Amino acid sequence: MKPFKDCVAGIAGMGIMGGAFAMALGRLAPRRLLACDTGRKPLDAALADKVIDEGFTDAAAMLRQCDFLYLCINPSQALPFMETHISDFKRGALITDIAGVKGTIAHRIEVLLREDLDYIPGHPMAGSEKGGYEQAKKCVFRGKNYILTPLKRNKKENLEYLKDLIRRMGFGSITETTAEEHDRNIAFTSQLCHVIAAALIDSEADTAIARFGGGSFEDLTRIAMLNAPMWTELFLENRNELLKRIAQFQGSLDALTSLIAGEESVLLEERLQAVRERRAAMKA
Amino acid sequence: MKPFKDCVAGIAGMGIMGGAFAMALGRLAPRRLLACDTGRKPLDAALADKVIDEGFTDAAAMLRQCDFLYLCINPSQALPFMETHISDFKRGALITDIAGVKGTIAHRIEVLLREDLDYIPGHPMAGSEKGGYEQAKKCVFRGKNYILTPLKRNKKENLEYLKDLIRRMGFGSITETTAEEHDRNIAFTSQLCHVIAAALIDSEADTAIARFGGGSFEDLTRIAMLNAPMWTELFLENRNELLKRIAQFQGSLDALTSLIAGEESVLLEERLQAVRERRAAMKA
Repeated sequence: MKPFKDCVAGIAGMGIMGGAFAMALGRLAPRRLLACDTGRKPLDAALADKVIDEGFTDAAAMLRQCDFLYLCINPSQALPFMETHISDFKRGALITDIAGVKGTIAHRIEVLLREDLDYIPGHPMAGSEKGGYEQAKKCVFRGKNYILTPLKRNKKENLEYLKDLIRRMGFGSITETTAEEHDRNIAFTSQLCHVIAAALIDSEADTAIARFGGGSFEDLTRIAMLNAPMWTELFLENRNELLKRIAQFQGSLDALTSLIAGEESVLLEERLQAVRERRAAMKA
Repeated sequence: MKPFKDCVAGIAGMGIMGGAFAMALGRLAPRRLLACDTGRKPLDAALADKVIDEGFTDAAAMLRQCDFLYLCINPSQALPFMETHISDFKRGALITDIAGVKGTIAHRIEVLLREDLDYIPGHPMAGSEKGGYEQAKKCVFRGKNYILTPLKRNKKENLEYLKDLIRRMGFGSITETTAEEHDRNIAFTSQLCHVIAAALIDSEADTAIARFGGGSFEDLTRIAMLNAPMWTELFLENRNELLKRIAQFQGSLDALTSLIAGEESVLLEERLQAVRERRAAMKA
């Protein structure tokens, strides 16, 4: 890959994440920054904001120019997009994506890749419950976690190139792992959390109860403002791992419930103290 | 009650909440602001910060001077404190507390009250997972919810007096309700949230999984840094309501789990969309 300042970089999909990556990559000053979307609106907004140099509703016309592509479209559309456009990519292009499930999607994209292309699956842990390009400015990358699940075929120099860009965009830690390990862990840290937040809100019809809410209620239900189609996809795409994680959480919930029901104050306090210490260790 | 500027106000217990109320009441400029604690350390810190005018380890000596008292000690100690010191209060004093469970504690304090004293039970929804006086500055009241569960015997003028102070300290909404309704609702918005956060951390021993965490994991587990003795008390004190709320949450978790296991994408998306809309309505 040539230096980023000599690259034409492209973003496919200008929702909140595409917009946020456009802003972050733009600050790294590629030769040109392009974006495509099915609708003109986010493209025109990004042009007006001087975030991109040119916007395309014709993805093929953009892809033919791009040395580097961030694929920022919903997981279910990532594979069809790659299938449709695999012959449109510029020779030797480097591609990365941001889909929240890696196992199935990354493997399916891998099998249809052209020999000259390199695709490094990724997952930036920097989403938001809000969607749309207009929310992109509020999407903060600084200090956030980034997961990469490199393929055996990835060129080492391309992996280092992408990691350098990720660090320069402000992310705090980069973890390299397998797609399977990613999906197992993300089922816990992301999907299970969303299922729990949704179940909390689902369980109480009285919206006036929010007047009794403090920081904990706010925290645990913020992500219940979820993008329903996207999270349905993510839950079902990673169904097996997620169901295992729900069962695992369920075990602990049952154990705590038993201690409360049995008024086991000593055991309950010990268990809560252990939780506190484990959570503190996770911050380190 | 005389105007607050002519009152001697006291804080019993200088942990994070006592410290935060001392700072907030101090800005309303009472004639004198006193505090008592079993230890000198937080009192000396508050004196050094010019937050209080005088600090006492002898609660009785302070109470004899106070026209107004904020009882900011752990729920389990609130009742013994009142039992021990009921004869020490200045004649006609107005007392309020901040205990997170109201039914049992407020009723028990009520029965031992002297005729001349007025006690208005309250619960500011402005805690923090951190504890201790040194954290008090970070405890934000602005815009937060405040619940009052007035007693039949409360003087109307005292209730208005307290509400005026609460508003002037920056709280956003004041809800008046019964102790029973408080405990039913708080079991959902506060205690259930803490049980869930604790169960999440309890369920996963691998602290390195935090590298896979994004905002949702951070949000759902922040409050797992809980004060184990205090939350043990709160869970057990409000056990019956909390167990009902856990069962209610469980029902929704089971329903969502079934939709995921059955790959019911249409029903799952509809249900998540309804959750999103309900959560949005709660913000209003």
